Amino acid sequence: AQEKFFAGIPKIQYKPDAGPGDVMCFKHYNAEEVLMGRTMEDWLRFSVCYWHSFCGPGAGPLGVPTQHRLWNKGSPMKSAKKRLCAAFEFFTKLGVKYYTFHDRDIAPEGSTLEESNRNLDEITDLALKLQNQTGVKLLWITCNLFTHLRYMNGAATNPDCHVLAYAGAQVKKGLEIAKKLGAENFVFWGGRGFHSIHNTDVAVELNHMATFFKMAVNYKEKIGLSCQFLIAPQQLEPGKHQYDYDAMSLIGFLKLCGLDSDFKLKIEPNHTTLGGHDIVMASAFGMLGSIDSNTGYPYLGWDTDQCPMDIRNTTLVMKVIVEQGGLHPGGLNFVAKVHRESTDLEDLFISHIGVMDAFARGLRNAVRIIEDGVIASMMQERYSSFSHGLGQKVENGTATLEEMEDFIKENGEPEVTSGKQEKYESVFNHYI
Amino acid sequence: AQEKFFAGIPKIQYKPDAGPGDVMCFKHYNAEEVLMGRTMEDWLRFSVCYWHSFCGPGAGPLGVPTQHRLWNKGSPMKSAKKRLCAAFEFFTKLGVKYYTFHDRDIAPEGSTLEESNRNLDEITDLALKLQNQTGVKLLWITCNLFTHLRYMNGAATNPDCHVLAYAGAQVKKGLEIAKKLGAENFVFWGGRGFHSIHNTDVAVELNHMATFFKMAVNYKEKIGLSCQFLIAPQQLEPGKHQYDYDAMSLIGFLKLCGLDSDFKLKIEPNHTTLGGHDIVMASAFGMLGSIDSNTGYPYLGWDTDQCPMDIRNTTLVMKVIVEQGGLHPGGLNFVAKVHRESTDLEDLFISHIGVMDAFARGLRNAVRIIEDGVIASMMQERYSSFSHGLGQKVENGTATLEEMEDFIKENGEPEVTSGKQEKYESVFNHYI
Amino acid sequence: AQEKFFAGIPKIQYKPDAGPGDVMCFKHYNAEEVLMGRTMEDWLRFSVCYWHSFCGPGAGPLGVPTQHRLWNKGSPMKSAKKRLCAAFEFFTKLGVKYYTFHDRDIAPEGSTLEESNRNLDEITDLALKLQNQTGVKLLWITCNLFTHLRYMNGAATNPDCHVLAYAGAQVKKGLEIAKKLGAENFVFWGGRGFHSIHNTDVAVELNHMATFFKMAVNYKEKIGLSCQFLIAPQQLEPGKHQYDYDAMSLIGFLKLCGLDSDFKLKIEPNHTTLGGHDIVMASAFGMLGSIDSNTGYPYLGWDTDQCPMDIRNTTLVMKVIVEQGGLHPGGLNFVAKVHRESTDLEDLFISHIGVMDAFARGLRNAVRIIEDGVIASMMQERYSSFSHGLGQKVENGTATLEEMEDFIKENGEPEVTSGKQEKYESVFNHYI
Amino acid sequence: AQEKFFAGIPKIQYKPDAGPGDVMCFKHYNAEEVLMGRTMEDWLRFSVCYWHSFCGPGAGPLGVPTQHRLWNKGSPMKSAKKRLCAAFEFFTKLGVKYYTFHDRDIAPEGSTLEESNRNLDEITDLALKLQNQTGVKLLWITCNLFTHLRYMNGAATNPDCHVLAYAGAQVKKGLEIAKKLGAENFVFWGGRGFHSIHNTDVAVELNHMATFFKMAVNYKEKIGLSCQFLIAPQQLEPGKHQYDYDAMSLIGFLKLCGLDSDFKLKIEPNHTTLGGHDIVMASAFGMLGSIDSNTGYPYLGWDTDQCPMDIRNTTLVMKVIVEQGGLHPGGLNFVAKVHRESTDLEDLFISHIGVMDAFARGLRNAVRIIEDGVIASMMQERYSSFSHGLGQKVENGTATLEEMEDFIKENGEPEVTSGKQEKYESVFNHYI
Repeated sequence: AQEKFFAGIPKIQYKPDAGPGDVMCFKHYNAEEVLMGRTMEDWLRFSVCYWHSFCGPGAGPLGVPTQHRLWNKGSPMKSAKKRLCAAFEFFTKLGVKYYTFHDRDIAPEGSTLEESNRNLDEITDLALKLQNQTGVKLLWITCNLFTHLRYMNGAATNPDCHVLAYAGAQVKKGLEIAKKLGAENFVFWGGRGFHSIHNTDVAVELNHMATFFKMAVNYKEKIGLSCQFLIAPQQLEPGKHQYDYDAMSLIGFLKLCGLDSDFKLKIEPNHTTLGGHDIVMASAFGMLGSIDSNTGYPYLGWDTDQCPMDIRNTTLVMKVIVEQGGLHPGGLNFVAKVHRESTDLEDLFISHIGVMDAFARGLRNAVRIIEDGVIASMMQERYSSFSHGLGQKVENGTATLEEMEDFIKENGEPEVTSGKQEKYESVFNHYI
Repeated sequence: AQEKFFAGIPKIQYKPDAGPGDVMCFKHYNAEEVLMGRTMEDWLRFSVCYWHSFCGPGAGPLGVPTQHRLWNKGSPMKSAKKRLCAAFEFFTKLGVKYYTFHDRDIAPEGSTLEESNRNLDEITDLALKLQNQTGVKLLWITCNLFTHLRYMNGAATNPDCHVLAYAGAQVKKGLEIAKKLGAENFVFWGGRGFHSIHNTDVAVELNHMATFFKMAVNYKEKIGLSCQFLIAPQQLEPGKHQYDYDAMSLIGFLKLCGLDSDFKLKIEPNHTTLGGHDIVMASAFGMLGSIDSNTGYPYLGWDTDQCPMDIRNTTLVMKVIVEQGGLHPGGLNFVAKVHRESTDLEDLFISHIGVMDAFARGLRNAVRIIEDGVIASMMQERYSSFSHGLGQKVENGTATLEEMEDFIKENGEPEVTSGKQEKYESVFNHYI
Repeated sequence: AQEKFFAGIPKIQYKPDAGPGDVMCFKHYNAEEVLMGRTMEDWLRFSVCYWHSFCGPGAGPLGVPTQHRLWNKGSPMKSAKKRLCAAFEFFTKLGVKYYTFHDRDIAPEGSTLEESNRNLDEITDLALKLQNQTGVKLLWITCNLFTHLRYMNGAATNPDCHVLAYAGAQVKKGLEIAKKLGAENFVFWGGRGFHSIHNTDVAVELNHMATFFKMAVNYKEKIGLSCQFLIAPQQLEPGKHQYDYDAMSLIGFLKLCGLDSDFKLKIEPNHTTLGGHDIVMASAFGMLGSIDSNTGYPYLGWDTDQCPMDIRNTTLVMKVIVEQGGLHPGGLNFVAKVHRESTDLEDLFISHIGVMDAFARGLRNAVRIIEDGVIASMMQERYSSFSHGLGQKVENGTATLEEMEDFIKENGEPEVTSGKQEKYESVFNHYI
Repeated sequence: AQEKFFAGIPKIQYKPDAGPGDVMCFKHYNAEEVLMGRTMEDWLRFSVCYWHSFCGPGAGPLGVPTQHRLWNKGSPMKSAKKRLCAAFEFFTKLGVKYYTFHDRDIAPEGSTLEESNRNLDEITDLALKLQNQTGVKLLWITCNLFTHLRYMNGAATNPDCHVLAYAGAQVKKGLEIAKKLGAENFVFWGGRGFHSIHNTDVAVELNHMATFFKMAVNYKEKIGLSCQFLIAPQQLEPGKHQYDYDAMSLIGFLKLCGLDSDFKLKIEPNHTTLGGHDIVMASAFGMLGSIDSNTGYPYLGWDTDQCPMDIRNTTLVMKVIVEQGGLHPGGLNFVAKVHRESTDLEDLFISHIGVMDAFARGLRNAVRIIEDGVIASMMQERYSSFSHGLGQKVENGTATLEEMEDFIKENGEPEVTSGKQEKYESVFNHYI
């Protein structure tokens, strides 16, 4: 019989009428309920993040690990297997259908590349078996090219080609594992950035990064891997200067390298103080591929990866997602960890349930906003001057400055039109 | 005889041995002195900013204007002419060879476009005459598409096409004036951005912005205007969300619109908390066209446009400029104003002299760093693995992931190499 | 017959069932409804801010005024009277019982102190009449010691005693007006702070500020003015360095000067990035006197004074207020202005209604949280070890380090106790 | 013979003429040189920080330790002794006369308090011996009340009295060790703050903190420990909300608890974005006791504790120190670590030398500024109106509002006086 890690905890139920103190059930997330033609599960595509929830020990900038779990016992490989079993028990009890991991989360790094690869092979055999048993699927996989000592000066942007080669070898294996486990996406992180302009040749490093991405695209094609490539902008951490600050800068970089049709963006609000801004911008350019849902404290500069529970934010995010027709093959991955001080095993459940309910409320709100159409018709009216005449020419890109001048000479000063932001906010508040 | 606005103040001299309290002479800036084959004047290409120094009244977020100047008297047109004469007297006494302005700084806005254009014609006749008399040239001109009430919801991104048309008509005239006055550059600002995602259609607005820039490029060609187009990223103000956050995002936008060969960037450190970062990134992509030299307080979110006097910063900026071979046809424009509380007329001189000396010191330091070559050879050593073998293939973009894996299987773990940031900083400090 | 400024707008009604697009009625604020023994009106003590809503013209850091109102016509005194009538029409239609102003908002500054005082006398005669007619009362009055040119280097902290004397004379008159109009509070702002440590003697300036406050306390007693004195910490603007950064630093300053029993704090969340933090801290020390309810954008450094519509925040604020038993004689003053682009007259109503509804929802939520007691009993349990034994001695301040050591030698390592932040957040979300 | 950890490195020499690439000598710090009546060594009172330089392994938010030192080998106690010997070798070769440590840096924590105390006893016997051999002294000692799991919810502010008792027992031992080693100061950190207002009773926790400090004061007196108590404000980390945000708030807290004569402040610029502000404020109130000299990146929210090498900053700091007559018995402690990527052993020396030279330059600049007196006389002139008449009454606290009004009625509007910030900055730049 399989070891039970969450022995007293049953499958989490939907109980819309539960009381304030009952935090071990869903009050809003009802997986099979259909909204605008799709189930909540399908709109939300929740995914549990393996490292924060199963490998993260609760260490802090000024403190040792606090979260001691039963699965962290035994030799590295033995404990890796127990951890994986615990995770699938958790996914199943929580009712989440996707998970995500870094290569080094799921299997311990060996003393050589070959040993690391063998470890990965062995552990992913078990993962494949558990996936098949439970129906849980792999939203995405990524390679950890930052924790190990060798990557302290970067991976694809390292000044030493030997390190870049190591990263390349690791990504090659990662792509093979993605194929083996049927990953729906493969993620590249935004990169380490750099600390000091004194010792960094920016142009050289970005050239190397472009080469690196192209090699990955080539190898993906070679092995017939059909998943979507994702890349994440990162405004803060770990370097002082990040190469890919926000959605727009990353789209620009991809375009410059001719890689813009090979990648979509994965946005992690807590990596960018721009928050929702990046989700909106990426979606506007047709580049929003997936979301790592977490939150941070404004004014705290570091990456706290907290559980996002603010209904206003989840409503805004879900509105963008529904408007663009969903996130497939991406999803809402919980790159969020319980607070360092939340040491009870049940806190893992409480936090995930809290976030899932917050997004379920956000989805319900967004659907009501879209179905009512009040805001949409206010917007349509606002931009209506571009549907005819000179406006249409601007829309089509065929207008000229001379026509503009003629128009003004004929029509004079435009009328003042209120932006009505408070009205939009009031209407929005109606749905919160 | 021409009215004198700075009666007691003679032409500012270079006095390298002046004492601490003597702030009305250059102690470092020696225009004709040659460094690395060019005069200081030619490396630095200083430009006085007309609006901050001659139109700016010292208003603050919580206070009325404080700086009452003699030239602000009489009817708008009369005072515009006095202001222009005062400015040329200032340029000449200070020994600066360039200036910059917005259309609405130099000539008052009329009640119709036609009247505004006539005002511009009349005042720029005088400007042309003063340019010819003094040899002072126009570094760049730009259109003010933000102050007037009509632009409160944006110019090229306004939801009302009538306003966009007004902006287009204004830019048409601006380009004509640029031709008349021999402007070496024409500047577009980064845009107003937006406050609220609730009432904004980002994709539509960016499409309009792209059309707007293309119309300007077309008209520039049509009238045979040969100056360089510049565009400025703007991280903060006046909208909550800026469309063009940093150098990289703006390069990306230009590339997406097919405009990247028509524009270079103008970087204003105080508009981006990234400061030097944007200058370095723009230069690395061959897109650094001009610099608006000013500074702000870190942690103060608004745009204080202060005089940059930190020698460390001016050294870093000048190092980038010298390394890319200068800024032509761009320059170092002082988008900096005296503090609101600096109400004496002499404060205008003291502040400009302070900044010019700070950049002169920065230039001297940068030249010594480059001529000594100590830092350059540390850098060369740092990236040396890319000059041969697998590294060279990465450099050329011809490497594959399979070669990477083979390399690691053969060579194993890379050596740990110190980044030596403190050593770089210590060497750099030697030159400050 | 009195001129009507809001002709088409009737008294705002409570319509709990109104639809999403209906923004000209209250859906949540029901003035006479009783919660926990008091009416909503009494808990909330709303107050309209005269300057933002009636004097504020919609100017921005890069733009001219946008809001042209009918009452801004005629000579300064004539327009001041029209403005006051418009305001009382607005208060009455909105159903708000308090207002607040600066001396220079309500009556124009004259060319001498005597003239300014006469203007104040004349206008406040009208204010008194309107107060009596409508039953609207004055929550607080304050003196504007920052806008005028003379205060550019500070008021009570000005390096020139002549300016400090002017500020003193102005405050003397302000206190007399407070008495005349029955103001329930008198406010002092946190001060201009300073820009540069190079030209500032901090110790001297703080000594002058303390003297200034003491003079005001003395004169208040002398004229038998019985209102509460309030003072506001100010983290940002207009100086780089603020003297009174947050609630705790201001409490400390008052204590150091022996003024802590003469003042309470007025907290304005948008003046401190600490937001709710300062409200909690001030309340914990028994020093929370009044709240200026507004909000800003995180990451925007300047003071946008926006309308606070986030229900999560209003709930947190109302929870503190209800827990301390209300704000009397303070209130919730709307130091919030419509966006610069919100130029319609109705936007004034829409914004105030939106904020009032947001606080009404916050109050309802807070009352449910407090009446349910779930969070309170979780808290009581959390701190229960201080109710007996060694804990009680700590509570009383009688414990010693030796007792601590003995306790540990006897009892060893403490148990690990989860902080359960996500559980608290989930329970809190239940009420939002 | 004693093991040598820095075998190839000789005692660092003063070589004012060394070249740019020579970073293993002092070019500015000349310990015995006398400035304004004291040696540089005595003005600067440098101290090496044991944890950052000898215990810090180079771990980062996203990376494992990078700095593998010879002294980190063997059992915990054996390695603790090697580490201490290495440190004293380093102090001596560097020529620094002070060091600082936390109890848990110098001796490993045992499984019980008793074992931890025995470890401390054994290691501090060695420390005492090494102090006597080398003449190096202990600037200050502090207790680590944050790293261990038990302190995750705070120490003196923990909701569980058992934890508070543990912290008390640990401080008792710390005070005894301070006496044994002749520490010149004893430091309390600003505290963990809190993450969530939902689960925190601020008033209760601050009461406990006050009790805790009083117990320490009592025990200090009881054992006849004569060192100075220091406490440090902490703006960021590890909690979202800090209790002691800045110098002023901490002074206020001490005053409220009646502890202001028992403590002085230790300011760590990188803990407060206010940077120099806090040093100036603490000094103005006569409360500046010691400085932890480090720096961070503006806009990076976390505590990077970098080496401060900016001459402008060191000049400002040294000017405050010289003006208040020095820091005795405090000092300039290097709470700065080499970057994670600086893995060479020599980087430890390079970084300390770089900082010492930067402060030596700051000291030389500050002395020239003070001896020249140009800035001082500009300041004296600026505040001169407070030396007579009404100004003197303000200075003495005897003025009244009525006198102010009379003064203005007689003298009218004050003259406008320029703040001349740019002039001050230009003069300051002369000395940099």
